[in-house]
Amino acid sequence: MKDFDPWSVGEIKDYGKLIEDFGMESFEAFRQRFDSFRYIRRGIIFGHRDFGKIVEALDKGKPFAMMTGLMPSGRFHMGHKMVADEIIWFQQMGAETYICAADMESYLMRDVSFEDARKTALTEYLSNYFALGLKKRGMRFWFQSDYVPEYYKLRDISSKRVTLNELQSIYGDMTTGKLVSVLSQVADILHPQLELFGGPKPVVVPVGADQDPHIRLTRDIASRLNAKRDSGRDMKCIPPSATYHKFMSGLQGGKMSSSDPKSYVALSEEPKSARKKIMSAMTGGRTTVEDQKERGGEPEKCMVYELLLYHLMDDDLELSRVYHECREGKLLCGECKGICAELLERFLLKHQKKLPSARKKAEKLL
Amino acid sequence: MKDFDPWSVGEIKDYGKLIEDFGMESFEAFRQRFDSFRYIRRGIIFGHRDFGKIVEALDKGKPFAMMTGLMPSGRFHMGHKMVADEIIWFQQMGAETYICAADMESYLMRDVSFEDARKTALTEYLSNYFALGLKKRGMRFWFQSDYVPEYYKLRDISSKRVTLNELQSIYGDMTTGKLVSVLSQVADILHPQLELFGGPKPVVVPVGADQDPHIRLTRDIASRLNAKRDSGRDMKCIPPSATYHKFMSGLQGGKMSSSDPKSYVALSEEPKSARKKIMSAMTGGRTTVEDQKERGGEPEKCMVYELLLYHLMDDDLELSRVYHECREGKLLCGECKGICAELLERFLLKHQKKLPSARKKAEKLL
Repeated sequence: MKDFDPWSVGEIKDYGKLIEDFGMESFEAFRQRFDSFRYIRRGIIFGHRDFGKIVEALDKGKPFAMMTGLMPSGRFHMGHKMVADEIIWFQQMGAETYICAADMESYLMRDVSFEDARKTALTEYLSNYFALGLKKRGMRFWFQSDYVPEYYKLRDISSKRVTLNELQSIYGDMTTGKLVSVLSQVADILHPQLELFGGPKPVVVPVGADQDPHIRLTRDIASRLNAKRDSGRDMKCIPPSATYHKFMSGLQGGKMSSSDPKSYVALSEEPKSARKKIMSAMTGGRTTVEDQKERGGEPEKCMVYELLLYHLMDDDLELSRVYHECREGKLLCGECKGICAELLERFLLKHQKKLPSARKKAEKLL
Repeated sequence: MKDFDPWSVGEIKDYGKLIEDFGMESFEAFRQRFDSFRYIRRGIIFGHRDFGKIVEALDKGKPFAMMTGLMPSGRFHMGHKMVADEIIWFQQMGAETYICAADMESYLMRDVSFEDARKTALTEYLSNYFALGLKKRGMRFWFQSDYVPEYYKLRDISSKRVTLNELQSIYGDMTTGKLVSVLSQVADILHPQLELFGGPKPVVVPVGADQDPHIRLTRDIASRLNAKRDSGRDMKCIPPSATYHKFMSGLQGGKMSSSDPKSYVALSEEPKSARKKIMSAMTGGRTTVEDQKERGGEPEKCMVYELLLYHLMDDDLELSRVYHECREGKLLCGECKGICAELLERFLLKHQKKLPSARKKAEKLL
C-alpha cells in the first residue's frame, strides 16, 4: 500500500500520470521556495509548465503577468475560492493581473445569456475576489464579448496557426461555437503580451489539471506566432507558463459542480446551511464506530478533511494532528465534522461581512 | 440560335441557371423603374434577392443601407469600377453606405499583410471610390481587423447559428481560417442592423453572382438570429437583400484577375499602356477580314465591346450602332479598338486628374 502523508489527498486521482504522460513538470523544485503559500506547501499545486520563467522574472524584478478566466455561471464556491486565492497570491507577488469573464464561451457552450453572465461575474465572482483580498491596482478585467479590437485580431490571427484536425484531436468533434470558444481562450491567454499591454512578458495561468490541453495548444500557437511563417503581423510572444492544481471533490464525493448545490458550499451561503452540508458530507470513516476505532479512518478519501486541507486549517501541525488522530481511530467523524463546521461558519461570517463593500468595488469596475 | 441583343453579353455564362436553380430572382421587374442606371438598363445587374424591401424603403422614405466589401489586394481595375459605380448609385439613392475592407480575410486566405492591406485599401480602393463620386457623408468604412466590439460579438453569436456541416456543404473543406473569414462576412453584412447603428433596416449587398452562397448563408443566419431559440441576446434583423451583376471578362478572355495585369486595365494605369492592352485584347472578330465582312463579328464574345457596354459608352443608341455594325461586318476590330482606346484614354485622363485630391480625402478618413 502506498505511503500516504497529510498532503496526499487526491493522489488517488492519479495526477502523477499527467506528469509522466503529457510532459507536465512536477512542482517539487519550487515547493520549498514558495512554501508560505498553502496550496504549494501542501502539494495542491502539484505541477507546472515553464514556471521557471516566472521565477526568473521575480528574481530579476522584471514584469510578469497572471491570467485567469472565470466561467460566469452558478454560485461562487470553495472550489472557486482556491483559484481566487491563487490569483491573489500571484498579485501579491507582483504579477499584473488579467481576469477574463468568459461570457462568450458560457453563451456558446452553456447557453448562458450575456445579461446573466454579467450579473454573475459581478455578484458572484468579482465581489468574492475583492472580499478575499484582490486589489484593483494593476488588474485588468474584461468580458470576451466586449473588448479591444487588438484582442479579436489576435484571436483571428491565431486561427491561421492551427488546423481543424489539430483541434479535433484535442477537443473531439468541433462545432463552430466550440471553435470560437477555443480561439477566444487562446487570445485570452496571449493578449497580455500585445504591444498595447506592454509587449512580451512571462504570463502564468493557474489552472486545474484538466485545463492542460488548452495550455498546450496555446503554447503551440504562441510558438507558431513567434515563427515568421507568412506575411501576417507576427507577434513576438513567450509561450505561457502554467501551474496545475488538484481538484476539490464535491461534498458527497465525485465532482464539485456549480449545477449541484449539494456538492459545494457557496461563499455567500447561510452559515447554518453550510453546517448542514458538512454534517452530511461524505467522509473517510468506516461503516461502524467499532471498525473505525480499530482500523482508523481514511482522511485521503474524506471530503471534510479536504476542506480543512485546502481552506480551513492553515496550521500544518494542527492539520497533521487531525490527520494522524483520524488514521489512528482516535478522532471520529462526528467530532471532526463539528470542528470543520465551526471553522467554516467562522470563515463564512467573516467573509460575508466583507461582501457588501467588495460588491460596491466590483460595481465600480464594470 | 439564340436571338442576341446589344445587352446580351455574358448570357453565354449561363446566368439564367442561377435564377432557376438557386432561387435568385430576375431583376426584370425593377428594370424599367431604375433604367437610368446603366448596369440595370443593360441587364448587367440581372438578378436579386428581396430587392423589393429596398424599393419599399425608397417608396416610404425609410432608412436603408448598402453594404459592400473590398478585398484589399492588387490594383483597382475596371471590374472594381463596376462595383464602385453600384455603391455610388445606391448612395445617391439615399442608402447609408457601409464599406468593409476585408483585411482579415485577405490575411487568412491570401496571406496579405495588414500593412499592405491598409495601403491598398487607401491608395487603390478608397481613392478611386472618391474619384468616381463616393461621398463621405453617411458612409462608414472599417477594417475587419479593427472595429467595434459589437461587431465581433455579433460574429461570435452567429457561430452558434450555423453548423460546421452546413459550412462544409457550402464552401467545401473548412479550415479554421476559412471559418473565421466566413463568419466575418456574415457580421459585415448584418451589423448595420445592430442597435448601435440604428437597428433593423433593409440592407442591400451588390455582388457578383458567385457571391450568392454567402448571401444565402447570411440570410439563413439572419432568420435564425431572429428566432428566439436560446438565451442569447437575439438580434432583430431583416435578412439582407442582394443584387447580382454579371462578371466582366478579362481582356484576353477568361477571368479578369488582379493577379494577371494583362487581364485588366487599372484606373491608375498610364493611358498609353491602357491603349496597348485594348489593341491586343481578344475580340469577337473572325480569323480573316474577308470572313468578318461576310459573316460579321460576334460582339457577345468581344472584350472590347464589353468595355464599351459596361463602362465607356453610356449612350444606348451609339452602343447599338457599334453592335449592329459589328454584326453586319461593317465595323472591323481595328477601328472598333481605336474607338474604345480613345474613350478609355479620355476616361483615364479625366479620372486620374481627380485622384490626388480623392486620395487626400481617403487619407483623412483612415
